[in-house]
Amino acid sequence: MLNIRILGSGNAGQVPVWGCDCAACERAKQDDTFRRGPCSLEIRTELGVTLIDAGIPNLAERYEFDEIQRIILTHFHMDHVQGLFHLRWSERPEKIPVFRPDDQKGTDDLYKHAGVLDFQPAFIPFETIQFDDFSITPLPLLHSKITLGYVIEKNGFTLAYLTDTVGLPETSQAFLANKTLDYLILDCSEPPTSTAPRNHNDINLALLAYHTLQPKIMMLTHISHRLDCWLMEHGDSLPDNMLIAKDGMTVI
Amino acid sequence: MLNIRILGSGNAGQVPVWGCDCAACERAKQDDTFRRGPCSLEIRTELGVTLIDAGIPNLAERYEFDEIQRIILTHFHMDHVQGLFHLRWSERPEKIPVFRPDDQKGTDDLYKHAGVLDFQPAFIPFETIQFDDFSITPLPLLHSKITLGYVIEKNGFTLAYLTDTVGLPETSQAFLANKTLDYLILDCSEPPTSTAPRNHNDINLALLAYHTLQPKIMMLTHISHRLDCWLMEHGDSLPDNMLIAKDGMTVI
Ligand SMILES: [Mn+2]
Ligand SMILES: [Mn+2]
Ligand SMILES: [Mn+2]
Ligand SMILES: [Mn+2]
Ligand SMILES: [Zn+2]
Ligand SMILES: [Zn+2]
Repeated sequence: MLNIRILGSGNAGQVPVWGCDCAACERAKQDDTFRRGPCSLEIRTELGVTLIDAGIPNLAERYEFDEIQRIILTHFHMDHVQGLFHLRWSERPEKIPVFRPDDQKGTDDLYKHAGVLDFQPAFIPFETIQFDDFSITPLPLLHSKITLGYVIEKNGFTLAYLTDTVGLPETSQAFLANKTLDYLILDCSEPPTSTAPRNHNDINLALLAYHTLQPKIMMLTHISHRLDCWLMEHGDSLPDNMLIAKDGMTVI
Repeated sequence: MLNIRILGSGNAGQVPVWGCDCAACERAKQDDTFRRGPCSLEIRTELGVTLIDAGIPNLAERYEFDEIQRIILTHFHMDHVQGLFHLRWSERPEKIPVFRPDDQKGTDDLYKHAGVLDFQPAFIPFETIQFDDFSITPLPLLHSKITLGYVIEKNGFTLAYLTDTVGLPETSQAFLANKTLDYLILDCSEPPTSTAPRNHNDINLALLAYHTLQPKIMMLTHISHRLDCWLMEHGDSLPDNMLIAKDGMTVI
């Protein structure tokens, strides 16, 4: 059993953006299914739940303590870790292992007052970790903080979850080119931009990754209200096997 | 018009604490009215809403952008500011003035990427600011970060909001002793402790403040699940004009 679900599909501003009345934000205000929370993924196996990122603020309401097997962080930007600032104050004697990139600073006082969070030694890029229920390989990404993407593998199924990033480092690109990707879930925050985007992919870079890595299915995530507006007009122009993430959507 | 409401009455761990099955946490899971979110206050006048602290994560769902007149921070601990990390990404051209203590560091990258938040020059302790709708006087508190309490005054009505603190500095104590307090809303995070508490009041220190400052009405806030458990057994022993804050409760 390997069930994977999009928990949040939004960028840091989320959808709706506070005080915005663009078409995408208005749609999200009228229909909750179009809301986009902080970008994160749920992996559920018979052993429990693994979260990739923890930017959703009400994780304590969504998950029983005993359900959470581990948390894996892509990086220490607030929109990916803010949910931990409540969870950490659990007083349960068991700790929750938190895997992470080699970022000495973390976010605010999270390392200093880790509470129930048991920060593990930093992942070493390209070194596969075999958990009891699946394996994971961390890949360096290109972002304004030290950031890792993850390749999740189980019984011949391969999924890459790559956010936040603008393009890919050559080493990660080469690693992925050697894989047959059943799924590629990729940061695509912005509509096509004429200037080179900073810190996040736009549609042009996402299409480049699509053609280069040739995943069986691709899914765009970390979506801004600007991209949502663009998709409302131009979504049909994307390849048939390129999907748009939605909060709560089942991947497999 | 001066309507004041408790937005959140909990400590950083909130109630229920994640994974806790104590009597207070079980009660809160069964009855939402006993939940305690991050400690914060709403002041509503004909001119709009002033928030004291912004630790509630879903402020964007609770308040229209145009409703919020200003935000006043007591200090930069995450449970008092975490809601700002979403709000800041509003793309409205108008800014939200954010008043604050003289903390050069802030929280994480909040100063660096302030977005729509317009951080004001730090408050000067004991210097009264006359807003259009009420006046406010910042008072130093005793806490692990630079922290201010606030005296809110309008037309002869006086309310002191003092959290987070353990006891009071002599200067603030002397300032308050010269006031007739209609309301004193005070940090009381813990049941009576035998050792001196750190960073937050316990019931013993709250009772000391009650006897010293003699407010007409006192209200305890920043409440932990430990204090809630104690109150379930010993709440009747408190003075009649000492109230326990609840989320959403109207003060005046
Ligand atoms: Mn992000
Ligand atoms: Mn990021
Ligand atoms: Mn606090
Ligand atoms: Mn504090
Ligand atoms: Zn919008
Ligand atoms: Zn409890």
